[in-house]
Amino acid sequence: MKKTSIVGKNVRKLDSVEKAMGAATFTTDISLPHMLYGKVLRSPYPHAKIINIDTSEAEKHPGVEAVVCYKNTPRVKFNTSATSTFTIPPLQPVEDQYVFDSVVRYVGDEVAAVAAESMEIAEQAIKLIKVEYEELPAVFDPLEAMKTEAPLLHGQCKEGRNIPGEKIHMEMGDVEKGFEEADEVFEHTFKLPVQKQAQMETQAAVAKVGVDGRVTIWSTTQTPHPSQRILATIFGLPYSKVRVLNPPYIGGGFGVRIGLSAKAEPIAMALAMQAKKPVKVVYDRKEDFIASDTRHSGYVTVKTGVKKDGTFTARKMRGLLNAGAYCSWSAETPGVLGAMGLSVYRCANQMYDGHSVYTNTTPGGAMRGFGNPQAMFAIESQVDIIAEKLGLDPLDIRMKNMMKPGDQWVLPYKCQSSGLEECIKKGAAAINWDCRGKVEKGSTKKRGIGVGIGSHVSNAWPFCGDYSNAYITIHQDGSVLLATGVPDMGTGTITTLAQMAAETLGISFDKVSVTFADTESTPFDIGSHASRTCYASGIAVVAAANDAKKQILQYAAKKMEVEEEELQIENNNVLAINNPEKQLPLNKVAVDAHLEGQQFIGVGKIVPENAPPWLAHFAEVEVDTETGKVKVVKLVAAHDVGKAIHPQIVEGQLHGGLAQGIGYALSEEIKYNDKGQQLNDGFHKYMLPTAVDIPELEAIIVEAAEPSHPFGVKGVGETGLVATAPAIANAIFNAIGIRFFEIPITEEKVYKALLNKENE
Amino acid sequence: MKKTSIVGKNVRKLDSVEKAMGAATFTTDISLPHMLYGKVLRSPYPHAKIINIDTSEAEKHPGVEAVVCYKNTPRVKFNTSATSTFTIPPLQPVEDQYVFDSVVRYVGDEVAAVAAESMEIAEQAIKLIKVEYEELPAVFDPLEAMKTEAPLLHGQCKEGRNIPGEKIHMEMGDVEKGFEEADEVFEHTFKLPVQKQAQMETQAAVAKVGVDGRVTIWSTTQTPHPSQRILATIFGLPYSKVRVLNPPYIGGGFGVRIGLSAKAEPIAMALAMQAKKPVKVVYDRKEDFIASDTRHSGYVTVKTGVKKDGTFTARKMRGLLNAGAYCSWSAETPGVLGAMGLSVYRCANQMYDGHSVYTNTTPGGAMRGFGNPQAMFAIESQVDIIAEKLGLDPLDIRMKNMMKPGDQWVLPYKCQSSGLEECIKKGAAAINWDCRGKVEKGSTKKRGIGVGIGSHVSNAWPFCGDYSNAYITIHQDGSVLLATGVPDMGTGTITTLAQMAAETLGISFDKVSVTFADTESTPFDIGSHASRTCYASGIAVVAAANDAKKQILQYAAKKMEVEEEELQIENNNVLAINNPEKQLPLNKVAVDAHLEGQQFIGVGKIVPENAPPWLAHFAEVEVDTETGKVKVVKLVAAHDVGKAIHPQIVEGQLHGGLAQGIGYALSEEIKYNDKGQQLNDGFHKYMLPTAVDIPELEAIIVEAAEPSHPFGVKGVGETGLVATAPAIANAIFNAIGIRFFEIPITEEKVYKALLNKENE
Repeated sequence: MKKTSIVGKNVRKLDSVEKAMGAATFTTDISLPHMLYGKVLRSPYPHAKIINIDTSEAEKHPGVEAVVCYKNTPRVKFNTSATSTFTIPPLQPVEDQYVFDSVVRYVGDEVAAVAAESMEIAEQAIKLIKVEYEELPAVFDPLEAMKTEAPLLHGQCKEGRNIPGEKIHMEMGDVEKGFEEADEVFEHTFKLPVQKQAQMETQAAVAKVGVDGRVTIWSTTQTPHPSQRILATIFGLPYSKVRVLNPPYIGGGFGVRIGLSAKAEPIAMALAMQAKKPVKVVYDRKEDFIASDTRHSGYVTVKTGVKKDGTFTARKMRGLLNAGAYCSWSAETPGVLGAMGLSVYRCANQMYDGHSVYTNTTPGGAMRGFGNPQAMFAIESQVDIIAEKLGLDPLDIRMKNMMKPGDQWVLPYKCQSSGLEECIKKGAAAINWDCRGKVEKGSTKKRGIGVGIGSHVSNAWPFCGDYSNAYITIHQDGSVLLATGVPDMGTGTITTLAQMAAETLGISFDKVSVTFADTESTPFDIGSHASRTCYASGIAVVAAANDAKKQILQYAAKKMEVEEEELQIENNNVLAINNPEKQLPLNKVAVDAHLEGQQFIGVGKIVPENAPPWLAHFAEVEVDTETGKVKVVKLVAAHDVGKAIHPQIVEGQLHGGLAQGIGYALSEEIKYNDKGQQLNDGFHKYMLPTAVDIPELEAIIVEAAEPSHPFGVKGVGETGLVATAPAIANAIFNAIGIRFFEIPITEEKVYKALLNKENE
Repeated sequence: MKKTSIVGKNVRKLDSVEKAMGAATFTTDISLPHMLYGKVLRSPYPHAKIINIDTSEAEKHPGVEAVVCYKNTPRVKFNTSATSTFTIPPLQPVEDQYVFDSVVRYVGDEVAAVAAESMEIAEQAIKLIKVEYEELPAVFDPLEAMKTEAPLLHGQCKEGRNIPGEKIHMEMGDVEKGFEEADEVFEHTFKLPVQKQAQMETQAAVAKVGVDGRVTIWSTTQTPHPSQRILATIFGLPYSKVRVLNPPYIGGGFGVRIGLSAKAEPIAMALAMQAKKPVKVVYDRKEDFIASDTRHSGYVTVKTGVKKDGTFTARKMRGLLNAGAYCSWSAETPGVLGAMGLSVYRCANQMYDGHSVYTNTTPGGAMRGFGNPQAMFAIESQVDIIAEKLGLDPLDIRMKNMMKPGDQWVLPYKCQSSGLEECIKKGAAAINWDCRGKVEKGSTKKRGIGVGIGSHVSNAWPFCGDYSNAYITIHQDGSVLLATGVPDMGTGTITTLAQMAAETLGISFDKVSVTFADTESTPFDIGSHASRTCYASGIAVVAAANDAKKQILQYAAKKMEVEEEELQIENNNVLAINNPEKQLPLNKVAVDAHLEGQQFIGVGKIVPENAPPWLAHFAEVEVDTETGKVKVVKLVAAHDVGKAIHPQIVEGQLHGGLAQGIGYALSEEIKYNDKGQQLNDGFHKYMLPTAVDIPELEAIIVEAAEPSHPFGVKGVGETGLVATAPAIANAIFNAIGIRFFEIPITEEKVYKALLNKENE
């Protein structure tokens, strides 16, 4: 790889000053003349039919300017995720919800909404809406929901009772033959909880409907371009009449708003259309919990055949996820779960079956990792069980079986590079693996060390369509405007894209500005998700920069009487590679071209391949055997990121993922009571790890350059929590000899397990 | 020309509903959190040095958050016009002003500005600024200002005392020889007044300076991209950090804000930078009059040699314009005056000399026609004098000498088409030319009919750089986003550009949206002026549409198994030309391409040629010989517009130009007293023609298609007033036999002339 001067450097993040000074604009900050405030009335029942809805009192309430429900909003079905736009044929998108319906399917489902002069009035007004419900039988568990007696949420499904979309099946080799070849066969089922994204900014949208029929939506979406499509389709408008943009910042996402922001956009739009005034809808935290997609809970069964030396001969997996009340991403997530689960270890005979099941709970959707953390908790727990049983070192069995470039796997793209071995070695050194099990055993506080490895993706293909476009325009002073449709959720997207643009163009970083996440100022981009921005949108940005660069060099070659191939741009100068005295400042070239009527305009249009990042997580824990409390002492995350464009941003992503992984392992879970109500619908009850729970975090960056990206980048947005939970679970086993088949491994569960073990 | 289905139709203007319903946003409507209001302190003297300026009391005034003057603003010289960006080498731009200077050069010149919590506080605060002036000698007349004893406004000038930039000289053939060949030689000098653009919306800007150093400027500029350059240069920022946009509407322009909006932008920016809050600066009408560019007043001398049969053998012109206190467009306007003056009539021997002269008055700048109305008042008055003297019909002498395609002329581009003859014939028929002079002469109200012909440009080249770019992106439903940097001042620009895009792409008009006049969402465009948007920006839009169309057809050809050349898009369908049964809806093609990761993105990058529109104006007037009042009874404007994309819009432009031409001919003039103060600094004193002054207007559209534009378009933005004043003056002569060598031909002047004539 060519030496770089901006890529790989910790330049100042483009959004840092605005955010540090409180000047950054988020959706909730948008304020427009005559703007109204929208509030949603939500279902108190998990499953019910609306027999009658009387909005007349609310409409008459002073200050109320619009009331919408299923009676006066479009009867167009859609999917809140971007999936309905980009499901790859022959899969069919599952479109199973309306803006409002006459049936409600979970506690929190949208019944009606009001727009009023103030939020207080709107809150009063929704209480004046009289709804007569006929309660329907409800089901909360996916296993129950598949039974014949279970209520149907969306009528008959093609693949089975309450199964949205198509079942996923993957297969390679001959699994039964593989099990026959095995010396031992292991089979375990693991249970996964509902985790919540718990992003800082709740779901929000502001809709402005012009008298000319053009609509502008500021929202928290991670995908402005796909959201434009969903909204235009719902309301029957040409896409070009709907502008969707971030304002420009989003307070996190973690997948919760790929597509719509929990319907805040169409609700704001429906209200704005009726009121003929702009409407702002900002969900409160409780709404965000109960009515906004979660990570899928469910069950993962893994059956593995192994030779005595630890070689895997066969693996069969089954994933069963709780879709909740609407499909959202539930057709795709089981696929990622399986594909990731089958792609970390080389094994000739593998098979996966998986699907989701509708229940009367909050929909499961996209969340950082997207099925992969579920898969890896199961697989990496079982690999430790196997190692223990066969008397092998957990690292050795992993090193022996791990996937390498060139190995056959289930995915349609190639693994062209892997730094996994280096990750394992460096991570092991950092956690002091050699001392594992050697801590003294006398105390009531038991220490243990565990490992988990994994992989992930660098974009969404082949699980949904994935492509990017970008513009690069060169101003007369040689400064640059980069236009990309991809949002920045706080992850440093725009900074890293600007770095790649500056590096490619040979100009200073501070000369680049970025306009982003706006369907009217940028070409199509599928959005910010699937760990794809730095990889996929990055490839588009580099392509656009190279297109502009080619035009610059062509123009300069004529001016300088040098062959175009001999020219390069370095440090804002166009110069002859072999004759550095022959040079022209880029601003001179740019202004000369302008005076002749030419602006250098680069367009990047790309369909990315995909690339697996690789990771090894190591956890050291201390288990208090008197209370059951697990304290994570240290986490090491060694990640093959291909190339860290901005190392601090990469470390930030990994640290964030690790923290979220600690929560997934030890404390985070949304539970429901028998009325379908969430028991943890706020930060006071939902146990996020806080600063005191976060131990020393060590992020180790490994760079095995990825050939399919111009700078070697692989995705890093999600990897930080892919194998954190199993590393912690394995460390707990190492500390106290107890295996947990279910997360979160709460203090209470550990305490009970310790009691049980004593009583054995 | 191919048959069109959208081009040529009076589709609904895209801005019409918003404007009719009062929902359109203008700069003055912009409101931002914490926004302050800016007010400018202006010079009471026509020429003075600021000895001392004490802003301390103003700064202490409660509610004041910034005070700026020459002491704390950049010492970077610039030109408020776009000229400093786009002067074509080897001409040098004249950069002669600062945001604030320590010398003031006209009454109204900017001395300081204040930003405060309210406009009231700002107005109080500027009164607290104590300025000690040393008055300097002032000069108001350009002839005086060239004399040795005249005060220098900007130090020594290269070309002569108080002459900004370079003198213009144009020559073809041998003028002296031409005069020798003539049977008669005519020489007259005409005096032209200061006309004011009097656009509806006064100059205005809102500046927001981000804590990250990025600046956003909403303003009334007609040229966002060139303005970005001027502002970035003044404040030493990379251009990419300065975003300039219209909000998106502008209440007229007529040239008054090509470049900056009378410095509202840099003043708002300087205040915002100091206050660290957004600042809105909206000039009041008086400020707009006294401190915003006007049309150039001055003198035009024409000397013409003629054979007895009316053939022109030589023409020599001299233009002398009053630049006012700063150069603005004063280096270019004399060039246009001369070039237009020499290009209406075929004449082998022609010469022009012209320049401007600084005086201590409001700067002269760009205004609809840009030198051409001055030239044509002189030439067309003289042609009538010649016809009268030689006993020729005014139409015959014009028809005999008029320029035709292929004739040699001074301009570097070709005249490729002319509908002038048709204009003259149709216009003459409409005004009933045959009855000219045949009205009864007994009454005190004398009727007369006059004619004036002319030409103009379709863009700014070769008088300044001219080029355009555009993006066309195709959404998945086959709808289209057009991105163009050109503003819409109310002239229908975006509508006509959208029509051309839809026509080229074969899609419905209602599927096109336009994002415009924003440096962050559009590629470079030189802006809205020089009658160029429909012609030059239009060529770029069609180029972008054709680029996108080519991609669509390439893609569809593969899908449909048809040769690309055999495909066409009509009515939102891609179809085989010779086999119309073979077709695919465009939305199917677009969504299929998206599913394969391709968005059709067209980029149009063009440097336009130029093309002369042609025009013949006919006026019928009635002069009240008892009062001197001239009533225009009817105006006919027959214009060769090449192709009327939207006939109603073309008619609207012509009607507006005619009305402004009536004012120029009869009533509009800014005068100064001996202290350099404007005597007509508001609508109560500046005599715009009102509804009661506007007669029957008949716009006749002639379409001699222009080969250099894909739809045959020629410029029409300015032509409506090019020959209105001479047509009226000639009609007055026809009515009462009195020739006026000076406009406006006010009631008072006519009355006095009638008295003088009686006394002769």
